[in-house]
Amino acid sequence: MTNEKVNLDEKFKLINDYWNPRIVGELNKQHVKLVKFQGAFVWHKHDDEDELFYVIKGSFDLEFHDKVITLNEQEFYIVPKGVEHRPVARAEVHVMIFEPAGTLNTGNVLSNLTRDQLENI
Amino acid sequence: MTNEKVNLDEKFKLINDYWNPRIVGELNKQHVKLVKFQGAFVWHKHDDEDELFYVIKGSFDLEFHDKVITLNEQEFYIVPKGVEHRPVARAEVHVMIFEPAGTLNTGNVLSNLTRDQLENI
Repeated sequence: MTNEKVNLDEKFKLINDYWNPRIVGELNKQHVKLVKFQGAFVWHKHDDEDELFYVIKGSFDLEFHDKVITLNEQEFYIVPKGVEHRPVARAEVHVMIFEPAGTLNTGNVLSNLTRDQLENI
Repeated sequence: MTNEKVNLDEKFKLINDYWNPRIVGELNKQHVKLVKFQGAFVWHKHDDEDELFYVIKGSFDLEFHDKVITLNEQEFYIVPKGVEHRPVARAEVHVMIFEPAGTLNTGNVLSNLTRDQLENI
């Protein structure tokens, strides 16, 4: 665990790719992650983990089979465990994620977007 | 757990007092809380819980016995369990807190600032 404060602007400048979450904090067996989204992700679910998406900059759609939640800056949504979802971003969006350590970004699905070795920045 | 998105601006408009955290989200036995600080809090520690402070608007000092961390907008700091600390805000600041459900705001200390019945908003 870092013993320094974390400035989100500075951290996002270190991220030059999409759908590749970085770990920026750990507490109580949870991770704080930063990620840039652009385009459409894969449909997936997390059987054992609730997942919080908080928008720092921009906006994106969280698609569910029965609804779409558009998240704008300073808005968050908690996706309950077991619920299939798909993030879709028309333009680049900066997102903070809060979820248990070890949560796989693509959940129950393996794809070319799966990232199972996350970098700490 | 709410099934709606949370807009932080709207939630902060509902808060008209200081040092009284409200619960705005729950996931994986953790709470997301919003709180307004102004003035000096009490020195305390949490024996079993790490605590994340993230500044939404304004700034404040996190005092420790050996250092002071000034947190500005879009900055967070994780206070490890067992470490005594005291938030001090010269002016009103809007803060988001992540910590385990049931964490007491004054930790190991009981004071007139202790809030053990938190409102969900």
